[in-house]
Amino acid sequence: MTSAVDRLWVVVPAGGAGTRLWPLSRAGSPKFLHDLTGTGRTLIQGTVDRLVPLVGHRALVVTGAVHQAAVREQLPELQPAQVVAEPSPRDSMAAIGLAAATVERDDPDGLIGSFAADHVIDDAEAFRACVGEAADVADTGLLVTIGIDPRSPSTAFGYIRPGAALAGYPTARSVAEFVEKPDAARAATYVEAGYRWNAGMFVVRASVLLDLLAEQHRDLAAGLRRIAADPSCLEEVWPTLEKIAIDHAVAEPAAAAGRVAVVPGPFGWDDVGDFASLGELIPALDGTPGTAVLGDPARVVMVDASGLVVPGDRAVAVVGLDDVVVVDTGDALLVTTRDRAQDVKHVVAELRQRELGELT
Amino acid sequence: MTSAVDRLWVVVPAGGAGTRLWPLSRAGSPKFLHDLTGTGRTLIQGTVDRLVPLVGHRALVVTGAVHQAAVREQLPELQPAQVVAEPSPRDSMAAIGLAAATVERDDPDGLIGSFAADHVIDDAEAFRACVGEAADVADTGLLVTIGIDPRSPSTAFGYIRPGAALAGYPTARSVAEFVEKPDAARAATYVEAGYRWNAGMFVVRASVLLDLLAEQHRDLAAGLRRIAADPSCLEEVWPTLEKIAIDHAVAEPAAAAGRVAVVPGPFGWDDVGDFASLGELIPALDGTPGTAVLGDPARVVMVDASGLVVPGDRAVAVVGLDDVVVVDTGDALLVTTRDRAQDVKHVVAELRQRELGELT
Repeated sequence: MTSAVDRLWVVVPAGGAGTRLWPLSRAGSPKFLHDLTGTGRTLIQGTVDRLVPLVGHRALVVTGAVHQAAVREQLPELQPAQVVAEPSPRDSMAAIGLAAATVERDDPDGLIGSFAADHVIDDAEAFRACVGEAADVADTGLLVTIGIDPRSPSTAFGYIRPGAALAGYPTARSVAEFVEKPDAARAATYVEAGYRWNAGMFVVRASVLLDLLAEQHRDLAAGLRRIAADPSCLEEVWPTLEKIAIDHAVAEPAAAAGRVAVVPGPFGWDDVGDFASLGELIPALDGTPGTAVLGDPARVVMVDASGLVVPGDRAVAVVGLDDVVVVDTGDALLVTTRDRAQDVKHVVAELRQRELGELT
Repeated sequence: MTSAVDRLWVVVPAGGAGTRLWPLSRAGSPKFLHDLTGTGRTLIQGTVDRLVPLVGHRALVVTGAVHQAAVREQLPELQPAQVVAEPSPRDSMAAIGLAAATVERDDPDGLIGSFAADHVIDDAEAFRACVGEAADVADTGLLVTIGIDPRSPSTAFGYIRPGAALAGYPTARSVAEFVEKPDAARAATYVEAGYRWNAGMFVVRASVLLDLLAEQHRDLAAGLRRIAADPSCLEEVWPTLEKIAIDHAVAEPAAAAGRVAVVPGPFGWDDVGDFASLGELIPALDGTPGTAVLGDPARVVMVDASGLVVPGDRAVAVVGLDDVVVVDTGDALLVTTRDRAQDVKHVVAELRQRELGELT
């Protein structure tokens, strides 16, 4: 049989509203479609780029029908059939499961690796090495996740408690359990104890994923396999599928049954959850410590000020404010602070209440 | 002889860069051309409106050549000759003196009242009553100023120390001296002692002003009278005129000689010097104490925030910042705080240094 990585398909679930990144991210143009870190590539392009050296163009993107055209435009190297449109959002298990069923149909020994479209990774080489090892482990029938080295006791992510080392692999361990987002005190003990961040990355044989799913969600697994067998029934079957996250549907029960492994991810990772995260991903301007500009710095004037500025097509001047966030777009302007970055979602709620939802 | 007020001409010096109100106020469009308080009238229109009931259209505006067309457009009720263009800025004595010489030429008994184009007054009735009394006092040959009731021990203005009451007038007093902008401690003692703010308002017989000027600045007075007599020599004479403020040229020496009176001004007055002042002039939004919007509040979203917002043509959202100032215009955006409002001028300096002077 070919090596595992040669049978690996990348699955990229591309969803999520990103309301905490308003006004950059909008319902009609969510964050994965944006070049949020100034690399010249959007987050979804970066996600695919990062995996091409490993899997070539064996990639499937699962996205909302409304974003299908934009995704195809950003990823012209994919065949139309590689961009799968969900008729409606039915959570991550249905999205990833549909891709798994498609891969399983075409290659019963195929593997999938699921990686969200809107995450940032700073060392693509290290990332690919992890995915390669994960594929080898997954080929034995385990569900494999990648556990990120926590760079802080964050309360924004779930954690993975590693178990014993797996014999025969450089770094893989069994997973003792997945734990939910902790409070700050608990997060500190987790980091201390060697837990890892759960970035929602899974590598698994397609058939193993669907078989695991079938154990507790028989109808969902059957529905997904039915759509793969006969894509013309997508519109009919999709709305009947159970809405559930892959973590709850498969990962947690499988961990409890000792069927999950983790490969440690020794690279920088971020889900760009808000402008505070984004500010840390963008290098500071020369000569202005504490100030990062996503865009053209020539028209940004900071007088006794620091923070993150995302200029639009106008000059932006900030006077006397530290750790500020200023995001200027064609139809909306946000001013906040790094500390309050999480609360940007309230603006979106307020605009919708005022019937200014077209701005969100 | 007719009553003094019937011989009173209003002189409106319309100059000043207003760099602390950037980006609303620009070199090419200074603050007097803007409706800064949401009344529907610009500051210069408000200045003239306020005096029309007293003097009809006996008004002269002295402005920079570059602003002449805009002033004429905003004040169509004035004859072209009533908008006088200075060939170049030569400080307030030349500007007001030229208007005085013109009035003196046409009416040797004429009076002038000089009121800056960019100040805000909250009680026009009380203001006109003061000007009426000031004209009566001025008709006797004194230089008369209006001394504003200080609403705080401000360090932003000069002060007037009143002397004895003038017999025969409701409120007028002699002026003991003009004092420069004080430090905070001194300002408090001034307010305690009954000093008044110097708003730079003068009412005086045109001939008295020029005669007072001639006592210490003979060439300047002569030059102004020469231009009035023969307007065709403006371009030739103007550049030779001494650059000096009216306070130093006339008001301070005349006060020392006991020839200045003050009429107390019991109305609210502001020179709209920066966005902190402006914020106090605009009523707070219903239901959002501490937040004033100059513009359409429908597209301003404040989440746990307060301050002054000047929206342009897009939505503005502020999250988690108090006493913030956000000013949005077509080509430039300012974010600062009320406390740092004075420092906005540094942005203008920085933009000019970067050769982005077109934004200032």
